[in-house]
Amino acid sequence: MPADSTAQTPTATPTILKLGGSVITDKDSPETVNDAALDRAVDAIADASDQSGSSLVIVHGGGSFGHIHAAEYGVSTTEGSHDLEAVTTIHGAMKQLNRVVVDRLGSAGVPAVPVHPLSAASRDAAGELSLSATAVSGLLDEGFVPVLHGDVIAHAGKGVSVLSGDEVVTTLATSLGASRVGLCSTVPGVLDDDDEVIETIRDFESVTSVLGASESTDVSGGMAGKVRELLALATPACVFGPDDVSDFLAGGEPGTRIERR
Amino acid sequence: MPADSTAQTPTATPTILKLGGSVITDKDSPETVNDAALDRAVDAIADASDQSGSSLVIVHGGGSFGHIHAAEYGVSTTEGSHDLEAVTTIHGAMKQLNRVVVDRLGSAGVPAVPVHPLSAASRDAAGELSLSATAVSGLLDEGFVPVLHGDVIAHAGKGVSVLSGDEVVTTLATSLGASRVGLCSTVPGVLDDDDEVIETIRDFESVTSVLGASESTDVSGGMAGKVRELLALATPACVFGPDDVSDFLAGGEPGTRIERR
Repeated sequence: MPADSTAQTPTATPTILKLGGSVITDKDSPETVNDAALDRAVDAIADASDQSGSSLVIVHGGGSFGHIHAAEYGVSTTEGSHDLEAVTTIHGAMKQLNRVVVDRLGSAGVPAVPVHPLSAASRDAAGELSLSATAVSGLLDEGFVPVLHGDVIAHAGKGVSVLSGDEVVTTLATSLGASRVGLCSTVPGVLDDDDEVIETIRDFESVTSVLGASESTDVSGGMAGKVRELLALATPACVFGPDDVSDFLAGGEPGTRIERR
Repeated sequence: MPADSTAQTPTATPTILKLGGSVITDKDSPETVNDAALDRAVDAIADASDQSGSSLVIVHGGGSFGHIHAAEYGVSTTEGSHDLEAVTTIHGAMKQLNRVVVDRLGSAGVPAVPVHPLSAASRDAAGELSLSATAVSGLLDEGFVPVLHGDVIAHAGKGVSVLSGDEVVTTLATSLGASRVGLCSTVPGVLDDDDEVIETIRDFESVTSVLGASESTDVSGGMAGKVRELLALATPACVFGPDDVSDFLAGGEPGTRIERR
Protein backbone atom coordinates (compact mmCIF):
# COMPACT_ATOMS: atom_id res chain seq x y z
CA MET A 1 0.00 0.00 0.00
CA PRO A 2 2.10 2.93 -1.24
CA ALA A 3 1.91 6.36 0.32
CA ASP A 4 0.01 8.91 -1.71
CA SER A 5 1.30 12.47 -1.51
CA THR A 6 4.90 11.41 -0.95
CA ALA A 7 5.23 9.52 -4.24
CA GLN A 8 6.93 12.46 -6.00
CA THR A 9 10.20 11.91 -4.14
CA PRO A 10 12.99 10.75 -6.47
CA THR A 11 14.43 8.30 -3.92
CA ALA A 12 13.12 4.73 -4.06
CA THR A 13 10.77 4.50 -1.08
CA PRO A 14 12.78 2.87 1.69
CA THR A 15 11.90 0.77 4.69
CA ILE A 16 12.75 2.38 8.06
CA LEU A 17 13.70 0.09 10.94
CA LYS A 18 14.06 1.44 14.46
CA LEU A 19 16.06 -0.57 16.97
CA GLY A 20 14.89 0.50 20.41
CA GLY A 21 17.55 1.72 22.81
CA SER A 22 16.36 -0.73 25.46
CA VAL A 23 16.69 -3.58 22.95
CA ILE A 24 20.33 -3.02 21.95
CA THR A 25 21.69 -1.74 25.28
CA ASP A 26 21.52 -2.90 28.86
CA LYS A 27 19.34 -0.15 30.29
CA ASP A 28 20.43 -0.79 33.88
CA SER A 29 24.14 -0.46 33.21
CA PRO A 30 25.62 2.83 31.90
CA GLU A 31 27.01 2.75 28.34
CA THR A 32 26.68 -0.99 27.98
CA VAL A 33 25.73 -2.69 24.72
CA ASN A 34 23.45 -5.75 24.88
CA ASP A 35 25.75 -7.75 22.61
CA ALA A 36 23.49 -10.75 22.14
CA ALA A 37 20.48 -8.63 21.23
CA LEU A 38 22.46 -6.36 18.89
CA ASP A 39 24.12 -9.34 17.14
CA ARG A 40 20.74 -10.95 16.64
CA ALA A 41 19.28 -7.81 15.08
CA VAL A 42 22.40 -7.35 12.92
CA ASP A 43 22.15 -10.95 11.67
CA ALA A 44 18.48 -10.45 10.75
CA ILE A 45 19.33 -7.24 8.88
CA ALA A 46 22.29 -8.86 7.09
CA ASP A 47 20.16 -11.83 5.99
CA ALA A 48 17.41 -9.55 4.73
CA SER A 49 19.82 -7.29 2.84
CA ASP A 50 21.22 -10.34 1.03
CA GLN A 51 17.75 -11.23 -0.17
CA SER A 52 16.04 -7.96 -0.99
CA GLY A 53 17.03 -5.13 -3.26
CA SER A 54 14.93 -2.64 -1.36
CA SER A 55 16.56 0.22 0.50
CA LEU A 56 16.76 0.45 4.26
CA VAL A 57 17.28 3.19 6.85
CA ILE A 58 18.18 2.15 10.40
CA VAL A 59 17.55 4.36 13.43
CA HIS A 60 18.53 3.42 16.95
CA GLY A 61 17.60 4.82 20.32
CA GLY A 62 19.87 5.84 23.18
CA GLY A 63 19.21 3.27 25.88
CA SER A 64 21.89 3.38 28.55
CA PHE A 65 24.12 5.59 26.33
CA GLY A 66 21.68 8.45 25.89
CA HIS A 67 19.04 8.61 28.57
CA ILE A 68 21.33 8.53 31.61
CA HIS A 69 23.39 11.49 30.40
CA ALA A 70 20.33 13.41 29.19
CA ALA A 71 18.75 13.05 32.64
CA GLU A 72 22.05 14.05 34.28
CA TYR A 73 22.09 17.37 32.39
CA GLY A 74 18.32 17.94 32.58
CA VAL A 75 17.94 17.82 28.79
CA SER A 76 14.82 16.40 27.10
CA THR A 77 12.92 16.95 23.86
CA THR A 78 11.51 20.15 25.38
CA GLU A 79 14.11 21.18 27.99
CA GLY A 80 17.43 22.44 26.63
CA SER A 81 20.92 23.36 27.79
CA HIS A 82 23.67 25.74 26.71
CA ASP A 83 26.27 23.73 28.62
CA LEU A 84 28.99 22.56 26.21
CA GLU A 85 29.66 19.56 28.46
CA ALA A 86 26.03 18.44 28.06
CA VAL A 87 26.42 18.52 24.27
CA THR A 88 29.79 16.80 24.31
CA THR A 89 28.79 14.07 26.76
CA ILE A 90 25.37 13.16 25.33
CA HIS A 91 26.43 13.43 21.69
CA GLY A 92 29.71 11.62 22.40
CA ALA A 93 27.93 8.70 24.08
CA MET A 94 25.40 8.39 21.25
CA LYS A 95 28.20 8.47 18.67
CA GLN A 96 29.98 5.72 20.56
CA LEU A 97 26.85 3.50 20.45
CA ASN A 98 26.29 4.41 16.80
CA ARG A 99 29.83 3.39 16.00
CA VAL A 100 29.29 -0.04 17.55
CA VAL A 101 26.05 -0.52 15.58
CA VAL A 102 27.61 0.68 12.29
CA ASP A 103 30.75 -1.44 12.77
CA ARG A 104 28.78 -4.62 13.53
CA LEU A 105 26.53 -4.07 10.52
CA GLY A 106 29.57 -3.43 8.31
CA SER A 107 31.29 -6.60 9.53
CA ALA A 108 28.10 -8.54 8.70
CA GLY A 109 28.19 -7.23 5.13
CA VAL A 110 25.63 -4.44 5.46
CA PRO A 111 26.90 -1.19 3.82
CA ALA A 112 26.11 0.85 6.93
CA VAL A 113 27.09 4.54 7.06
CA PRO A 114 26.74 6.77 10.15
CA VAL A 115 24.47 9.83 9.98
CA HIS A 116 24.44 12.08 13.05
CA PRO A 117 21.38 14.28 13.61
CA LEU A 118 23.39 16.99 15.45
CA SER A 119 24.99 17.69 12.03
CA ALA A 120 21.71 17.84 10.13
CA ALA A 121 18.87 19.04 12.34
CA SER A 122 17.60 21.88 14.54
CA ARG A 123 14.44 23.02 16.28
CA ASP A 124 12.94 26.51 16.00
CA ALA A 125 11.62 28.52 18.96
CA ALA A 126 8.28 26.69 18.74
CA GLY A 127 10.10 23.35 19.02
CA GLU A 128 9.37 22.53 15.37
CA LEU A 129 11.95 20.11 13.97
CA SER A 130 13.95 20.55 10.74
CA LEU A 131 15.86 17.41 9.78
CA SER A 132 17.69 17.53 6.46
CA ALA A 133 17.23 14.33 4.44
CA THR A 134 19.88 15.33 1.87
CA ALA A 135 22.57 12.96 3.11
CA VAL A 136 20.22 10.06 3.94
CA SER A 137 18.52 10.27 0.59
CA GLY A 138 21.81 10.52 -1.31
CA LEU A 139 23.31 7.57 0.57
CA LEU A 140 20.20 5.42 -0.03
CA ASP A 141 20.32 6.12 -3.75
CA GLU A 142 23.91 4.86 -3.82
CA GLY A 143 23.02 1.60 -2.07
CA PHE A 144 24.26 2.47 1.41
CA VAL A 145 22.28 1.90 4.61
CA PRO A 146 22.21 5.15 6.64
CA VAL A 147 22.25 4.52 10.40
CA LEU A 148 20.85 7.41 12.47
CA HIS A 149 20.19 7.74 16.19
CA GLY A 150 18.65 9.82 18.94
CA ASP A 151 20.89 12.83 19.61
CA VAL A 152 21.04 16.38 20.92
CA ILE A 153 20.34 19.13 18.37
CA ALA A 154 20.28 22.94 18.37
CA HIS A 155 17.01 24.30 19.77
CA ALA A 156 16.27 28.02 19.26
CA GLY A 157 16.45 29.86 22.57
CA LYS A 158 17.26 26.72 24.57
CA GLY A 159 20.73 25.67 23.44
CA VAL A 160 20.41 22.00 22.56
CA SER A 161 17.55 19.62 23.30
CA VAL A 162 17.04 15.89 22.75
CA LEU A 163 15.94 14.57 19.38
CA SER A 164 14.45 11.13 20.04
CA GLY A 165 15.02 8.18 17.75
CA ASP A 166 11.24 7.99 17.31
CA GLU A 167 11.16 11.57 16.02
CA VAL A 168 13.91 10.70 13.53
CA VAL A 169 11.80 7.77 12.33
CA THR A 170 8.54 9.67 11.87
CA THR A 171 10.23 12.71 10.28
CA LEU A 172 12.19 10.63 7.78
CA ALA A 173 9.15 8.42 7.05
CA THR A 174 7.41 11.53 5.75
CA SER A 175 10.34 13.28 4.06
CA LEU A 176 11.59 10.11 2.31
CA GLY A 177 8.09 8.79 1.58
CA ALA A 178 8.99 5.52 3.31
CA SER A 179 6.98 2.47 2.28
CA ARG A 180 7.13 0.74 5.67
CA VAL A 181 8.13 1.61 9.23
CA GLY A 182 9.06 -0.96 11.87
CA LEU A 183 9.80 -0.34 15.54
CA CYS A 184 11.64 -3.15 17.28
CA SER A 185 10.81 -2.85 20.97
CA THR A 186 11.49 -5.05 24.01
CA VAL A 187 7.84 -6.14 23.99
CA PRO A 188 6.21 -8.09 21.12
CA GLY A 189 3.82 -5.23 20.24
CA VAL A 190 1.42 -2.74 21.81
CA LEU A 191 -0.11 -4.64 24.71
CA ASP A 192 -3.67 -4.47 26.04
CA ASP A 193 -4.75 -4.70 29.69
CA ASP A 194 -4.24 -8.47 29.66
CA ASP A 195 -0.73 -8.06 28.16
CA GLU A 196 -1.96 -9.45 24.85
CA VAL A 197 -0.63 -7.91 21.63
CA ILE A 198 -3.18 -5.61 19.97
CA GLU A 199 -3.27 -6.67 16.32
CA THR A 200 -4.25 -3.39 14.68
CA ILE A 201 -4.61 0.21 15.85
CA ARG A 202 -6.43 2.61 13.54
CA ASP A 203 -7.21 5.49 15.89
CA PHE A 204 -5.87 6.73 19.18
CA GLU A 205 -9.24 6.96 20.93
CA SER A 206 -9.87 3.22 20.77
CA VAL A 207 -6.71 2.48 22.75
CA THR A 208 -6.53 5.40 25.24
CA SER A 209 -7.90 3.22 28.05
CA VAL A 210 -4.94 0.88 27.57
CA LEU A 211 -2.18 3.39 26.69
CA GLY A 212 -3.02 6.11 29.16
CA ALA A 213 -4.23 9.67 28.88
CA SER A 214 -3.76 11.60 25.67
CA GLU A 215 -1.63 14.27 27.40
CA SER A 216 1.38 11.94 27.36
CA THR A 217 3.03 13.71 24.46
CA ASP A 218 6.60 12.70 25.25
CA VAL A 219 7.63 10.94 22.04
CA SER A 220 10.85 9.80 23.66
CA GLY A 221 8.92 8.03 26.37
CA GLY A 222 5.99 5.68 26.57
CA MET A 223 4.08 3.69 24.02
CA ALA A 224 1.23 6.23 23.90
CA GLY A 225 3.46 8.84 22.30
CA LYS A 226 4.83 6.31 19.80
CA VAL A 227 1.34 5.20 18.76
CA ARG A 228 0.13 8.77 18.34
CA GLU A 229 3.12 9.69 16.19
CA LEU A 230 2.80 6.54 14.07
CA LEU A 231 -0.93 7.14 13.55
CA ALA A 232 -0.07 10.56 12.11
CA LEU A 233 2.02 8.97 9.34
CA ALA A 234 0.88 8.18 5.80
CA THR A 235 3.12 5.11 6.09
CA PRO A 236 1.84 1.93 7.82
CA ALA A 237 3.93 0.96 10.85
CA CYS A 238 4.50 -2.14 12.94
CA VAL A 239 5.62 -2.36 16.58
CA PHE A 240 7.16 -5.74 17.36
CA GLY A 241 9.70 -7.54 19.54
CA PRO A 242 13.29 -8.71 18.92
CA ASP A 243 12.05 -12.07 17.55
CA ASP A 244 10.29 -10.42 14.64
CA VAL A 245 12.97 -8.33 12.89
CA SER A 246 13.43 -10.94 10.14
CA ASP A 247 9.70 -11.31 9.59
CA PHE A 248 9.27 -7.53 9.27
CA LEU A 249 12.20 -7.15 6.87
CA ALA A 250 10.86 -10.01 4.75
CA GLY A 251 7.65 -8.03 4.22
CA GLY A 252 5.60 -9.42 7.12
CA GLU A 253 3.52 -7.40 9.56
CA PRO A 254 4.47 -8.78 12.97
CA GLY A 255 3.30 -7.39 16.32
CA THR A 256 0.90 -4.49 16.24
CA ARG A 257 0.06 -2.87 12.92
CA ILE A 258 -0.60 0.85 13.20
CA GLU A 259 -2.27 2.56 10.29
CA ARG A 260 -4.60 5.52 10.29
CA ARG A 261 -8.01 5.12 8.69
CA MET B 1 31.32 45.94 4.11
CA PRO B 2 28.21 43.77 4.54
CA ALA B 3 27.00 41.42 1.84
CA ASP B 4 23.96 42.61 -0.05
CA SER B 5 21.58 39.90 -1.19
CA THR B 6 22.37 37.66 1.75
CA ALA B 7 21.23 40.11 4.43
CA GLN B 8 17.76 38.53 4.72
CA THR B 9 19.07 35.47 6.56
CA PRO B 10 17.83 35.35 10.18
CA THR B 11 21.18 34.15 11.52
CA ALA B 12 23.63 36.85 12.62
CA THR B 13 26.19 36.93 9.82
CA PRO B 14 29.13 34.87 11.03
CA THR B 15 32.82 34.86 10.29
CA ILE B 16 34.11 31.68 8.67
CA LEU B 17 37.67 30.60 9.43
CA LYS B 18 39.29 27.75 7.53
CA LEU B 19 42.31 26.03 9.06
CA GLY B 20 44.22 24.40 6.22
CA GLY B 21 44.87 20.68 6.52
CA SER B 22 48.58 21.26 5.91
CA VAL B 23 48.66 23.82 8.72
CA ILE B 24 47.18 21.64 11.49
CA THR B 25 48.63 18.26 10.42
CA ASP B 26 52.06 16.99 9.47
CA LYS B 27 51.45 16.32 5.78
CA ASP B 28 54.38 13.94 5.47
CA SER B 29 53.33 11.64 8.28
CA PRO B 30 50.01 9.71 8.10
CA GLU B 31 47.33 10.77 10.60
CA THR B 32 49.63 13.05 12.57
CA VAL B 33 48.48 16.31 14.13
CA ASN B 34 50.87 19.27 14.07
CA ASP B 35 50.36 19.95 17.76
CA ALA B 36 52.27 23.23 17.93
CA ALA B 37 50.45 24.71 14.94
CA LEU B 38 47.02 23.54 16.11
CA ASP B 39 47.58 24.84 19.65
CA ARG B 40 48.65 28.19 18.26
CA ALA B 41 45.51 28.48 16.12
CA VAL B 42 43.33 27.32 19.04
CA ASP B 43 44.87 29.96 21.33
CA ALA B 44 44.22 32.69 18.76
CA ILE B 45 40.58 31.55 18.39
CA ALA B 46 40.09 31.32 22.17
CA ASP B 47 41.51 34.84 22.67
CA ALA B 48 39.29 36.25 19.94
CA SER B 49 36.15 34.55 21.24
CA ASP B 50 36.75 36.10 24.66
CA GLN B 51 36.82 39.54 23.12
CA SER B 52 34.18 39.52 20.42
CA GLY B 53 30.51 38.68 20.55
CA SER B 54 30.40 37.81 16.86
CA SER B 55 29.66 34.28 15.72
CA LEU B 56 32.25 31.99 14.21
CA VAL B 57 32.26 28.86 12.03
CA ILE B 58 35.46 26.84 11.82
CA VAL B 59 36.24 24.52 8.91
CA HIS B 60 39.36 22.39 8.72
CA GLY B 61 40.97 20.48 5.89
CA GLY B 62 42.15 16.88 5.84
CA GLY B 63 45.91 17.12 5.64
CA SER B 64 47.55 13.80 6.43
CA PHE B 65 44.22 12.41 7.77
CA GLY B 66 42.19 12.89 4.63
CA HIS B 67 44.32 13.11 1.51
CA ILE B 68 46.37 9.95 1.99
CA HIS B 69 43.28 7.74 2.35
CA ALA B 70 41.39 9.52 -0.41
CA ALA B 71 44.31 8.88 -2.79
CA GLU B 72 44.53 5.26 -1.61
CA TYR B 73 40.89 4.62 -2.61
CA GLY B 74 41.02 6.78 -5.75
CA VAL B 75 38.37 9.16 -4.44
CA SER B 76 38.38 12.90 -5.23
CA THR B 77 35.81 15.68 -5.60
CA THR B 78 34.90 14.21 -9.00
CA GLU B 79 35.88 10.52 -8.72
CA GLY B 80 33.70 8.40 -6.44
CA SER B 81 33.60 4.95 -4.87
CA HIS B 82 30.91 2.51 -3.71
CA ASP B 83 33.44 0.71 -1.48
CA LEU B 84 32.20 0.77 2.13
CA GLU B 85 35.81 0.57 3.33
CA ALA B 86 36.61 3.80 1.46
CA VAL B 87 33.76 5.57 3.25
CA THR B 88 34.62 4.12 6.64
CA THR B 89 38.34 4.82 6.40
CA ILE B 90 38.25 8.36 4.98
CA HIS B 91 35.30 9.49 7.10
CA GLY B 92 36.74 7.79 10.18
CA ALA B 93 40.11 9.52 9.80
CA MET B 94 38.49 12.92 9.26
CA LYS B 95 36.27 12.41 12.31
CA GLN B 96 39.35 11.54 14.35
CA LEU B 97 41.07 14.80 13.30
CA ASN B 98 37.83 16.73 13.89
CA ARG B 99 37.61 15.29 17.38
CA VAL B 100 41.11 16.51 18.21
CA VAL B 101 40.30 20.00 16.92
CA VAL B 102 36.94 20.16 18.74
CA ASP B 103 38.42 18.83 22.01
CA ARG B 104 41.31 21.32 21.98
CA LEU B 105 38.95 24.21 21.27
CA GLY B 106 36.63 23.04 24.05
CA SER B 107 39.50 22.79 26.52
CA ALA B 108 40.51 26.36 25.60
CA GLY B 109 37.00 27.60 26.41
CA VAL B 110 35.60 27.78 22.87
CA PRO B 111 32.08 26.21 22.72
CA ALA B 112 33.04 24.03 19.74
CA VAL B 113 30.55 21.45 18.39
CA PRO B 114 31.36 18.90 15.66
CA VAL B 115 29.37 19.00 12.39
CA HIS B 116 30.10 16.22 9.90
CA PRO B 117 29.31 16.90 6.22
CA LEU B 118 28.63 13.19 5.47
CA SER B 119 25.51 13.63 7.66
CA ALA B 120 24.33 16.80 5.95
CA ALA B 121 25.41 16.91 2.31
CA SER B 122 25.21 15.18 -1.07
CA ARG B 123 26.02 15.79 -4.72
CA ASP B 124 23.61 15.23 -7.59
CA ALA B 125 24.54 13.51 -10.87
CA ALA B 126 25.94 16.80 -12.22
CA GLY B 127 28.22 17.08 -9.19
CA GLU B 128 26.17 19.96 -7.78
CA LEU B 129 26.54 20.17 -4.00
CA SER B 130 23.69 20.38 -1.46
CA LEU B 131 24.92 21.16 2.05
CA SER B 132 22.24 21.69 4.67
CA ALA B 133 22.96 24.68 6.93
CA THR B 134 20.15 23.80 9.36
CA ALA B 135 22.41 22.47 12.11
CA VAL B 136 25.20 25.04 11.63
CA SER B 137 22.76 27.93 11.64
CA GLY B 138 20.88 26.61 14.69
CA LEU B 139 24.12 26.05 16.63
CA LEU B 140 25.42 29.54 15.77
CA ASP B 141 22.21 31.14 16.99
CA GLU B 142 22.68 29.38 20.34
CA GLY B 143 26.22 30.64 20.76
CA PHE B 144 28.08 27.48 19.76
CA VAL B 145 31.00 27.34 17.32
CA PRO B 146 30.30 24.67 14.67
CA VAL B 147 33.47 22.90 13.50
CA LEU B 148 33.17 21.30 10.05
CA HIS B 149 35.73 19.54 7.87
CA GLY B 150 36.48 18.04 4.50
CA ASP B 151 34.73 14.68 4.21
CA VAL B 152 33.26 12.09 1.85
CA ILE B 153 29.60 12.60 0.88
CA ALA B 154 27.05 10.75 -1.24
CA HIS B 155 27.46 11.51 -4.96
CA ALA B 156 24.66 10.45 -7.32
CA GLY B 157 25.82 7.61 -9.55
CA LYS B 158 29.32 7.54 -8.05
CA GLY B 159 28.86 6.32 -4.47
CA VAL B 160 30.74 8.82 -2.35
CA SER B 161 33.16 11.55 -3.43
CA VAL B 162 35.32 14.03 -1.56
CA LEU B 163 33.86 17.27 -0.26
CA SER B 164 36.80 19.60 0.26
CA GLY B 165 37.05 21.94 3.22
CA ASP B 166 37.23 24.83 0.72
CA GLU B 167 33.88 23.81 -0.76
CA VAL B 168 32.38 23.75 2.74
CA VAL B 169 33.70 27.29 3.28
CA THR B 170 32.37 28.79 0.05
CA THR B 171 28.99 27.01 0.28
CA LEU B 172 28.38 28.10 3.88
CA ALA B 173 29.63 31.62 3.16
CA THR B 174 26.75 31.97 0.71
CA SER B 175 24.04 30.05 2.60
CA LEU B 176 24.81 31.73 5.95
CA GLY B 177 25.48 35.14 4.43
CA ALA B 178 28.88 35.21 6.14
CA SER B 179 30.34 38.66 6.76
CA ARG B 180 33.98 37.57 6.42
CA VAL B 181 35.93 34.52 5.22
CA GLY B 182 39.51 33.73 6.22
CA LEU B 183 41.71 30.93 4.93
CA CYS B 184 44.69 30.11 7.10
CA SER B 185 47.26 28.51 4.82
CA THR B 186 50.91 27.48 5.27
CA VAL B 187 51.98 30.50 3.20
CA PRO B 188 51.37 34.14 4.23
CA GLY B 189 49.01 34.82 1.29
CA VAL B 190 48.72 34.34 -2.47
CA LEU B 191 52.26 34.70 -3.74
CA ASP B 192 53.46 36.33 -6.97
CA ASP B 193 56.39 35.18 -9.13
CA ASP B 194 58.85 36.70 -6.67
CA ASP B 195 57.14 34.95 -3.72
CA GLU B 196 55.80 38.28 -2.52
CA VAL B 197 52.27 38.36 -1.07
CA ILE B 198 49.76 39.87 -3.52
CA GLU B 199 47.80 42.45 -1.53
CA THR B 200 44.47 42.39 -3.36
CA ILE B 201 42.94 40.20 -6.07
CA ARG B 202 39.78 41.49 -7.77
CA ASP B 203 39.63 39.30 -10.87
CA PHE B 204 41.07 35.98 -11.92
CA GLU B 205 42.53 37.17 -15.21
CA SER B 206 44.98 39.55 -13.56
CA VAL B 207 46.63 36.71 -11.66
CA THR B 208 46.47 33.78 -14.13
CA SER B 209 50.12 34.25 -15.07
CA VAL B 210 51.07 33.67 -11.44
CA LEU B 211 48.48 31.06 -10.43
CA GLY B 212 48.56 28.93 -13.54
CA ALA B 213 46.07 28.11 -16.27
CA SER B 214 42.35 28.53 -15.66
CA GLU B 215 41.72 24.84 -16.23
CA SER B 216 42.96 24.05 -12.74
CA THR B 217 39.49 23.65 -11.30
CA ASP B 218 40.39 21.30 -8.46
CA VAL B 219 39.08 23.21 -5.46
CA SER B 220 40.66 20.72 -3.10
CA GLY B 221 44.06 21.43 -4.62
CA GLY B 222 46.04 24.45 -5.59
CA MET B 223 45.74 28.12 -4.90
CA ALA B 224 44.20 28.85 -8.33
CA GLY B 225 41.05 26.91 -7.47
CA LYS B 226 40.80 28.62 -4.09
CA VAL B 227 41.12 32.09 -5.60
CA ARG B 228 38.54 31.38 -8.27
CA GLU B 229 36.03 30.08 -5.70
CA LEU B 230 36.65 33.01 -3.36
CA LEU B 231 36.21 35.52 -6.20
CA ALA B 232 32.76 34.01 -6.84
CA LEU B 233 31.60 34.93 -3.31
CA ALA B 234 29.67 38.01 -2.27
CA THR B 235 31.74 37.87 0.94
CA PRO B 236 35.26 39.38 1.02
CA ALA B 237 37.94 36.80 1.83
CA CYS B 238 41.52 36.80 3.09
CA VAL B 239 44.22 34.19 2.55
CA PHE B 240 46.94 34.39 5.21
CA GLY B 241 49.50 32.37 7.15
CA PRO B 242 49.49 30.88 10.67
CA ASP B 243 50.90 34.12 12.14
CA ASP B 244 47.81 36.09 11.15
CA VAL B 245 44.85 34.20 12.68
CA SER B 246 44.55 36.68 15.57
CA ASP B 247 44.77 39.67 13.26
CA PHE B 248 42.02 38.27 11.02
CA LEU B 249 39.73 37.41 13.93
CA ALA B 250 40.24 40.90 15.39
CA GLY B 251 38.82 42.35 12.17
CA GLY B 252 42.05 42.87 10.25
CA GLU B 253 42.70 41.93 6.62
CA PRO B 254 46.03 40.10 6.68
CA GLY B 255 47.66 38.38 3.71
CA THR B 256 45.86 38.60 0.38
CA ARG B 257 42.43 40.19 0.24
CA ILE B 258 40.18 38.62 -2.39
CA GLU B 259 37.05 40.48 -3.35
CA ARG B 260 35.26 40.60 -6.68
CA ARG B 261 34.71 43.97 -8.29
